[in-house]
Amino acid sequence: MNLTDDIALAARLADAAGAAIRPHFRTVLDSVRKGDATPVTIADREAEKVMRAILGTERPQDGIIGEEFGSERPGASRQWVLDPIDGTAGFLAGRPIFGTLISLMVDGWPLIGVIDQPISGERWVGAMGLPTLFNGAEIRCRPCGNLSQATLATTGPHYFDDHQGEHFMGLAAKTDHKRMVMGGDCYNYAMLASGQLDVVCEAGLKLYDFAALIPVVEGAGGTMADWSGDPLNADSDGHVIALGDPARLEDVVEALACRH
Amino acid sequence: MNLTDDIALAARLADAAGAAIRPHFRTVLDSVRKGDATPVTIADREAEKVMRAILGTERPQDGIIGEEFGSERPGASRQWVLDPIDGTAGFLAGRPIFGTLISLMVDGWPLIGVIDQPISGERWVGAMGLPTLFNGAEIRCRPCGNLSQATLATTGPHYFDDHQGEHFMGLAAKTDHKRMVMGGDCYNYAMLASGQLDVVCEAGLKLYDFAALIPVVEGAGGTMADWSGDPLNADSDGHVIALGDPARLEDVVEALACRH
Repeated sequence: MNLTDDIALAARLADAAGAAIRPHFRTVLDSVRKGDATPVTIADREAEKVMRAILGTERPQDGIIGEEFGSERPGASRQWVLDPIDGTAGFLAGRPIFGTLISLMVDGWPLIGVIDQPISGERWVGAMGLPTLFNGAEIRCRPCGNLSQATLATTGPHYFDDHQGEHFMGLAAKTDHKRMVMGGDCYNYAMLASGQLDVVCEAGLKLYDFAALIPVVEGAGGTMADWSGDPLNADSDGHVIALGDPARLEDVVEALACRH
Repeated sequence: MNLTDDIALAARLADAAGAAIRPHFRTVLDSVRKGDATPVTIADREAEKVMRAILGTERPQDGIIGEEFGSERPGASRQWVLDPIDGTAGFLAGRPIFGTLISLMVDGWPLIGVIDQPISGERWVGAMGLPTLFNGAEIRCRPCGNLSQATLATTGPHYFDDHQGEHFMGLAAKTDHKRMVMGGDCYNYAMLASGQLDVVCEAGLKLYDFAALIPVVEGAGGTMADWSGDPLNADSDGHVIALGDPARLEDVVEALACRH
């Protein structure tokens, strides 16, 4: 399958989303607290709308699964999966480490993934069978010889329920605790692909939160799975791990102790 | 007291520290795991060294309190307080939200504070009696009418012991939980000064972690205190809160329930 045209299209979608998001970054947010039409919702919605408009013109036969406006043509074999702003809380807090996520899934497999940071101008592009590119340059995950030396990242323990939190703490205790970082959302997976982190562990993710991450991470030599070590798919329950060094998968799954 | 020359000097210190740090950002970190001479230590040390060299030439009578190389001239009334990289774990993880912290304390009072982000080129400068500047433009904290609408930030619960964690959770439960952000280090205080966050709460900070934050936050209309609501000073125990709206101080102290 030749993905060249679709990769170029994904990049144009990210360009358009970024242009829609940037005017809302660090704007006065008093109105956030009033009803549903918050600045972040406006930014989210405008970014998803411009991406949907481009897809409607350029790929009218393809389906769309988006965070803000749901599904179109759910029976199509080609599905564009869109999260205009992954990391809403971080976006609202003025941090330049949220991201726009774009994936093309074909027959349930994510073949293309884009993580775009429109403030810093950073873009990670992964595609099945191709090396992951960061702003056009190939990147690789780093090796991790021992879980005790691993840097772990997660967006925050407040996204875990008590049960999930216990399993997460089991993993955290076996990694390099002094290096653990919180916050970050999709940026953690981008940094894992760039060789700066070893493990990311989260729960409660939706398909639009993780589909784009898979080609980015795997094209850089890493792997993704659920908390039992099984491959992710469109029906996964949102318990997600990413590893820069696939050789550590068994160690991470054992530390999480979720496999039956 | 005319601070103009010292503010200009603090800016030159930040320039020099940034130039020392940038070459180490997102470098291959295999050698981090080998002994003491890790890249982050090299970045930290080189940045502090260049700042100390400038101070030695330009302010030979002043004292220095630095994270990496300790104190010089501890009896001097003027003390430069330096943290070359606040947010070591975030720096190692490749995030562009760590910071260089520079403060001038006179007779124990922090009169000047600089938070510098050398990757994004963002700089916050606070000075007693002057409005805080972000890249040269005045900024203000935002009002917060009710703690239940407040966005709370902290670098991570793994920096709290169990006792601290319980008090923190008491505060977190009374804020807008969906907006809470983890990670961030000094960047959280910068975002509070820029009107993007309402409350930052941390424990275990050293003088070089918080001295520079005070002029930045207070010059933007916010306030800082310890967990009992008392003003911070050089002998504070490192339990720190920052508020964008000083009118919420009593609410935050009550929620933390640490005052005797």
